[in-house]
Amino acid sequence: MSRPQVQFWYEFASPYSYIAAHRVERLFEASGAEIVWRPLLLGPIFAAQAADGSPFQQASPAERRYRQRDVERLCAAENLPLAWPSSYPRNGLLAARTALIGCDAGWVAEFSKAVYRANFVEDQEISEATVIADVLSKLGLEAAEILEPAQAADNKARLKAQIEEAQAQGVFGAPTVRLPDGELFWGNDRLEQAAAWLLNGAWA
Amino acid sequence: MSRPQVQFWYEFASPYSYIAAHRVERLFEASGAEIVWRPLLLGPIFAAQAADGSPFQQASPAERRYRQRDVERLCAAENLPLAWPSSYPRNGLLAARTALIGCDAGWVAEFSKAVYRANFVEDQEISEATVIADVLSKLGLEAAEILEPAQAADNKARLKAQIEEAQAQGVFGAPTVRLPDGELFWGNDRLEQAAAWLLNGAWA
Repeated sequence: MSRPQVQFWYEFASPYSYIAAHRVERLFEASGAEIVWRPLLLGPIFAAQAADGSPFQQASPAERRYRQRDVERLCAAENLPLAWPSSYPRNGLLAARTALIGCDAGWVAEFSKAVYRANFVEDQEISEATVIADVLSKLGLEAAEILEPAQAADNKARLKAQIEEAQAQGVFGAPTVRLPDGELFWGNDRLEQAAAWLLNGAWA
Repeated sequence: MSRPQVQFWYEFASPYSYIAAHRVERLFEASGAEIVWRPLLLGPIFAAQAADGSPFQQASPAERRYRQRDVERLCAAENLPLAWPSSYPRNGLLAARTALIGCDAGWVAEFSKAVYRANFVEDQEISEATVIADVLSKLGLEAAEILEPAQAADNKARLKAQIEEAQAQGVFGAPTVRLPDGELFWGNDRLEQAAAWLLNGAWA
């Protein structure tokens, strides 16, 4: 029997994606699902929606304070370290392009979590090639051999097409999980429900 | 020992408040908390934040489709009936003013759930006095004797002051739960975490 595929759409700048990336494999373990890691950029998706910037930036001061506290509480509950990035949101373009190479090579999950650690724990500028190269090296990978195809025209086009695919699926934010039946679950806080849906055809 | 007070901020136009209103008492039962029902209007709060309309209205078509599906799934899981209101968001001003009378008289919880039923199950125009009068009558209350003080100047001022209190507490959306230690939990999907926080001082 083939394993059900769960598409995990995530953005490297997103704190809730950071948390979800550390929970998604565990939560879908019982269903035997394969997690398909699908990096995206929210910038073009928000731009197409005529919203300016991330919901985090648009939010009122009260909502921004709340979201920060919310992320801190969630990380604490998950035993995930957190140091709020001094720059937010960071540009995840190079990280997303590099992650696509890892989708084929089998290291996308480890790489993605390492990029989140650089962004949300070590406060590193993940838009810089030196930072991504360092992340790759620490994973035992040959950075130069990866960054070159990551920035090649065909891979740039691949990421663009992937983001268009997300939009066509109805994805408007991250993290979002898409189940084989097409059900979308948006938000780190919907992962449990998505996992129950896949197991039972509903979580009721 | 006095019971801890949990402030439950809710808006009659809000579908997520509808769901939360049917879960909040059950979820806080283990902590022995008293639920303080605190109706508010999001209109003035959003206006003060310079946002136009509800997040639901501002959202992209993809997000609006998703939120509708999300509410449908949540209601199904909760065995709550749902018929999407033909008008959204409905003006909850009179319902909120009336609920304040019920806060003193002891029928605010039952009244609030009945207004949600009128809005989200029976598709009734809850901004109309005849609809609110009907809700009160079905609860065995004397509608005329309640609607007059509900619309008196002092009660209008009371609701205004209550909304200002919500803003001072950092409330920017509904439903929101505020614990005695000042922790805010925004969203129907944070009720479990709020209840665990009250029990354990954290949910980790």
